[in-house]
Amino acid sequence: MTDKNRVFIFDTTLRDGEQSPGATMSHAEKLEIAAMLDEMGVDIIEAGFPIASEGDFAAVSEIAKQSQNSVICGLARAQLPDIDRCWEAVKHARRPRIHTFIGTSPLHRAIPNLDMDQMAERIEQTVSHARNLCDNVQWSPMDATRTEHDYLCRVVEIAIKAGATTINIPDTVGYTAPRESADLIRMLLERVPGADEIIFATHCHNDLGMATANSLAAVEAGARQIECTINGLGERAGNTALEEVVMALRVRHDIMPFDTGIDTTKIMNLSRRVAQVSGFPVQFNKAIVGKNAFLHESGIHQDGVLKNVETFEIMRPADIGLNETNIAMGKHSGRAALRAKLKDLGYEVGDNQLKDIFVRFKALADRKKEVYDEDIVALVQDAAANTGDDHLQVKHLKVVCGSDGQSADLTMIVDGEEKTVHATGDGPVDACFNAVKQIFPHNARLQLYQVHAVTEGTDAQATVSVRMEEDGRIVNGQSADTDTILASVKAYVGALNHLIVRRAQLGRDDKQISMYSH
Amino acid sequence: MTDKNRVFIFDTTLRDGEQSPGATMSHAEKLEIAAMLDEMGVDIIEAGFPIASEGDFAAVSEIAKQSQNSVICGLARAQLPDIDRCWEAVKHARRPRIHTFIGTSPLHRAIPNLDMDQMAERIEQTVSHARNLCDNVQWSPMDATRTEHDYLCRVVEIAIKAGATTINIPDTVGYTAPRESADLIRMLLERVPGADEIIFATHCHNDLGMATANSLAAVEAGARQIECTINGLGERAGNTALEEVVMALRVRHDIMPFDTGIDTTKIMNLSRRVAQVSGFPVQFNKAIVGKNAFLHESGIHQDGVLKNVETFEIMRPADIGLNETNIAMGKHSGRAALRAKLKDLGYEVGDNQLKDIFVRFKALADRKKEVYDEDIVALVQDAAANTGDDHLQVKHLKVVCGSDGQSADLTMIVDGEEKTVHATGDGPVDACFNAVKQIFPHNARLQLYQVHAVTEGTDAQATVSVRMEEDGRIVNGQSADTDTILASVKAYVGALNHLIVRRAQLGRDDKQISMYSH
Repeated sequence: MTDKNRVFIFDTTLRDGEQSPGATMSHAEKLEIAAMLDEMGVDIIEAGFPIASEGDFAAVSEIAKQSQNSVICGLARAQLPDIDRCWEAVKHARRPRIHTFIGTSPLHRAIPNLDMDQMAERIEQTVSHARNLCDNVQWSPMDATRTEHDYLCRVVEIAIKAGATTINIPDTVGYTAPRESADLIRMLLERVPGADEIIFATHCHNDLGMATANSLAAVEAGARQIECTINGLGERAGNTALEEVVMALRVRHDIMPFDTGIDTTKIMNLSRRVAQVSGFPVQFNKAIVGKNAFLHESGIHQDGVLKNVETFEIMRPADIGLNETNIAMGKHSGRAALRAKLKDLGYEVGDNQLKDIFVRFKALADRKKEVYDEDIVALVQDAAANTGDDHLQVKHLKVVCGSDGQSADLTMIVDGEEKTVHATGDGPVDACFNAVKQIFPHNARLQLYQVHAVTEGTDAQATVSVRMEEDGRIVNGQSADTDTILASVKAYVGALNHLIVRRAQLGRDDKQISMYSH
Repeated sequence: MTDKNRVFIFDTTLRDGEQSPGATMSHAEKLEIAAMLDEMGVDIIEAGFPIASEGDFAAVSEIAKQSQNSVICGLARAQLPDIDRCWEAVKHARRPRIHTFIGTSPLHRAIPNLDMDQMAERIEQTVSHARNLCDNVQWSPMDATRTEHDYLCRVVEIAIKAGATTINIPDTVGYTAPRESADLIRMLLERVPGADEIIFATHCHNDLGMATANSLAAVEAGARQIECTINGLGERAGNTALEEVVMALRVRHDIMPFDTGIDTTKIMNLSRRVAQVSGFPVQFNKAIVGKNAFLHESGIHQDGVLKNVETFEIMRPADIGLNETNIAMGKHSGRAALRAKLKDLGYEVGDNQLKDIFVRFKALADRKKEVYDEDIVALVQDAAANTGDDHLQVKHLKVVCGSDGQSADLTMIVDGEEKTVHATGDGPVDACFNAVKQIFPHNARLQLYQVHAVTEGTDAQATVSVRMEEDGRIVNGQSADTDTILASVKAYVGALNHLIVRRAQLGRDDKQISMYSH
């Protein structure tokens, strides 16, 4: 490996990913994901948009404080208060970065009503201001792929002169194609004075299904930072998927001789965890991390795979941390074995948390013959999602359903006080949710409800995910149980607990920001 | 549009897509999908692999008979009986095609133990044989992207001389990248005598997330047929997604001036239907057809979209047939309105089917305030999936669940005879499935269980999908109801009904074929 072939991985799961409608994550979830990204070897973590809300500010600050090796980056619009607020959050990191941006295409220039010269001046001011605060500054011309080439060269040069150390070229609408993506980076490297002194980044969206190829084409042309998210999470069709660019560079090192610092064996755990906390499931046929990515059906292919694994596989499941020997534990497994298994799965838990998970594990092992890795992961995630400190807790539930109608008897503890109600509804889930609503009245609307069996077999645990919206605030809840109805109620109540926390915050959604209103 | 810029769309949802583990479709579903593809303007439909099973043979034959404009293609290994069988099935089409293939890379040559000369001879024999039967012959060197260039040129030339009219270049393991994909087509066009007389096709897999870009790069280099599937369905990470290549060619016609014959407004309905019958859900952040593909969250983006839709959108939802005015019908809507709505959604139903759907619609409208397009789609699909002719029918269900345990009382009609049982289990779903098992004992294992709310709100219908496996046979069942437990039982029973049909057939799974055993 030569240094000039090192490609930096900039993960924006917590900023551009979390910006997807419905993917809002809790503070604790953001910290956990950030720690996993840091451990995986992500070079730069974009942790949030500090001025967007108190919650974003707190998350970026805490992620900065806990960071080990990763650079911690915050986003800021081209306004001085944004940049100051961003610095206040990221300055706690060992290696902080300020990322500031403005939309430079004709469509984007029209909205704040700045002409080319006015915008150029704004860029000079804001990048200089950022650089006075922090010696690691990234600047992005939003919608770069639809910006006039001459103007793009002009503003990139201004940003470099003003002190930007990384220039990111976003394909904001997912519009470009590989050749065009490469040509743009090549043009900038050739035409902009000082371009060889800084790092060019590529930031692609997947609207036409080409984000991965566009990112790699930019790298071949000279970009040395790829902006991406786990599972390709992001608005619309999402961002470039980290797992795809990293594995493509590894598998096709022969034609793309570039290296990243990613420990690929951590990919699968991160993918699962991000799917869980965002409530965005990964489709079976998703590249690298889909459930079927390593599965073969047809006789021809099976025959080939049995004879020589390379016949149809270009990667091994172990490369991304996918274990094939999966049967984990039985009812006779002890606490030490559980701790070892958790460590193996990437979870380091404290003694109290282990105790709690062990109780749940024993209860599950009594009911279920075979306890798989996925079951253990579901238990840990359930424990993390629903704690004893919550305002609302489910104490007892009895549901009747079927052809003759549905009703629920529910007992909950609300801030220490026990309440019991009876409710009916259209289906058992509706009856239960109506019961919860009687106990804790609210106007939140259910946006998403889904159930997935964690493993095979009719006695499997099911993971229930719900997403709710109230006055623009979006919250998720999850729970796992062999009883899908009980899990549904716990997930719903979990979401309400998140909502109670969000109501108390001055959340992002309470003051929708606009880059153009200032 | 000039003729030389016309790109043919070859859809292999029913062959390479249906080959995905668990995506097995019923005969009726295959016919329905084929009719939809034909109507959408797909140039060539690969309808199956006729020698693989009696079921495949019957499906390809029927699809050939019902075909209107599309060429109907069947797959055959490089063996004379395969090719004969394929011809027997496709010959009924107005425009039939035989597609024969053999693995030409070193890894694939090693398995049947043929040396280069022996394989070349086999190719000459089999392609000539196919061409004697049919004047439209496609030949594929499987794993072409890992075949030595000299040998690839040699065998492509042989196939052309033997009468192949289309040469397909498969990236069987999803290994290539755009530049390499283009270079390969360019090399073949330059080096192979007669290459300008035939059509080159590109067939990509998405293992590294680059199938769309690789396909388009091949087209830019001179390929004029793209092989793809709806939703990118297919083994492992799937095939090139039809919706992505078609929309990319449309949106970026400025830099890729190629045309297809696809009516893009049919995309969304086909995507939904394929997701339903295959049991492969589409992830929210899937390009073009994901639930979020046209959704915006962040304040900045929303502001931009409100001011000018082009700021963040490069396509309109209507381009793919996605209606934004979605509130469909209420309890006062009549049968004519329902028929009109169904037609609008792409469903042409007979009088009997309309009657059945109308009854279900009225029942739903009584329970649910707003009946959306998605609800209607779920009703139609439920009606198609579970008919009155089934061996097993659910008559009555009562379930108790919650903190104190779970039990089910179930009455079913088995071939006309009524049976009632009581069962317990780990969770309400397990209790119900145990009850079904008491009434109809079987050894099928539940591989997949998932529930998705059809629309928002706690009173939404939920669609339950189950996938079961017995002795290598894989079957799916689906049902929709506001009662998730009742829908679970109906989906499970639906899968068992499919299994009963499959047991009676000589299915593909009963005689796993191998190209190397002959």
